[in-house]
Amino acid sequence: MKIAVVAPSNPLSREAADQVQAIARARGDCELLVHPQCFLSNGHFAGSDGERLAALLEVMANPSVDAVWFARGGYGSNRIAEAAVRDVPQAARSKLFMGYSDTGFLLAALHKANLSVAHGPMPQDAIRDGGESAVGRALDWLVGRDQASLEPRLRPPAMAFNLTVLSKLLGTVLEPDFTGVELLVEEVSEHHYRIDRLMFHVTASANVRSAARIRLGRASDIPPNDPDFGADEQAIAAYWCEQAGIEMGESADIGHDSANKVVPFGAQTG
Amino acid sequence: MKIAVVAPSNPLSREAADQVQAIARARGDCELLVHPQCFLSNGHFAGSDGERLAALLEVMANPSVDAVWFARGGYGSNRIAEAAVRDVPQAARSKLFMGYSDTGFLLAALHKANLSVAHGPMPQDAIRDGGESAVGRALDWLVGRDQASLEPRLRPPAMAFNLTVLSKLLGTVLEPDFTGVELLVEEVSEHHYRIDRLMFHVTASANVRSAARIRLGRASDIPPNDPDFGADEQAIAAYWCEQAGIEMGESADIGHDSANKVVPFGAQTG
Repeated sequence: MKIAVVAPSNPLSREAADQVQAIARARGDCELLVHPQCFLSNGHFAGSDGERLAALLEVMANPSVDAVWFARGGYGSNRIAEAAVRDVPQAARSKLFMGYSDTGFLLAALHKANLSVAHGPMPQDAIRDGGESAVGRALDWLVGRDQASLEPRLRPPAMAFNLTVLSKLLGTVLEPDFTGVELLVEEVSEHHYRIDRLMFHVTASANVRSAARIRLGRASDIPPNDPDFGADEQAIAAYWCEQAGIEMGESADIGHDSANKVVPFGAQTG
Repeated sequence: MKIAVVAPSNPLSREAADQVQAIARARGDCELLVHPQCFLSNGHFAGSDGERLAALLEVMANPSVDAVWFARGGYGSNRIAEAAVRDVPQAARSKLFMGYSDTGFLLAALHKANLSVAHGPMPQDAIRDGGESAVGRALDWLVGRDQASLEPRLRPPAMAFNLTVLSKLLGTVLEPDFTGVELLVEEVSEHHYRIDRLMFHVTASANVRSAARIRLGRASDIPPNDPDFGADEQAIAAYWCEQAGIEMGESADIGHDSANKVVPFGAQTG
């Protein structure tokens, strides 16, 4: 199968691209088409908004591409997400789109446009500690819908977002309907007080309150709170879920790390 | 006049309290009642939610208090803001409330409850470079409604918020009506990519789009964006205002610094 890699946020590193290509070649069950746009650089981004959007629309419209794999997060997919789904080509409807972190803006928009999307590891994860297993897990899902790649306690329909991305989706045209959805969230590099502020904001939403439950994944690389916040991220999430009358489910096996599992959006699990 | 100081977010430092008391005594036109709650500590906060709320409700209900001055920002006023306005005592209706930064959550709630609020310097600002002038400006407004304290190009009705606080207000019960309002925003210690993400979020709101205009104050202590973002904060704000069809007004003389000016909420300028 053919998997196109585009970078709607930050550029992919050459090192990660080489490693993920080597992994794919060794498997022999897929061909990675790493779009040259992945290596463009324009200020913060992997090329201008126009360049990133054009690459994405090109692979969406390409009938020989079976899946679109977002190269990495960072920041910037929100700037092209609305335009990406304005006129969805028919060829996009049979593809699976995968990413996480900042690309959650795009996952939300594509899901809302009735395309098939999943939260899961990305090519740039290849250079993490244990990155080969993350890439392998993502490819196992993209190529063969391997159930072993899935978050193990998933009760679909589900969605997964970085907590900051979820907060910034609310009230925008990208915001999906969370009614009855198991909502998994994870965070990275945010202080406990910021996680508290994010949970305050997210759980205030009537749409989020219509979710079946919230499950917190890993919050990693938390900078020291000075003084100590007084509660950890699981206690913070539980507090705000209780305030909002939202069920708090068990911890989720997702996060900014190589153990990050796949969460297909919606009712799909295969 | 009597001005009560309470800390709805982080604790006030003894050093700042001493300096601001000395400034008030030297003026001779006001008495500062620094509530002991200002020096409590409970994890991140100046006392538990209950302690911070109780101190605020106590000074709101005290008929001998003419104004309530929030000691400092940090984080936490959102946790007590909804409860603070649940049953507003009559004595609170003749008082002015002042603060900025994190206390914007409370300013929004109090304004929405038809109380008189203003964005302006806080006691903790006393220990900034030039902090004496910031404290003097705040007291000139609280005591005498000195027009020289005002943001100089204000076209009321106006409101002023920290950009992050504004983003986190949206969709919550604290969110005020921005229709026809000149909306001043400022930020501190956020990367350019985060300012871009905040402006994306804030300008997507139909309520914010109903504002008369947005004016950006200072965005200070911006950590280096690696690589350089490619646009500064004024260009970022102008971009998102244009995308959203919001008028971008001239730069605003507010920010996390000693030059921070007073912005009364609503139509009041005296």
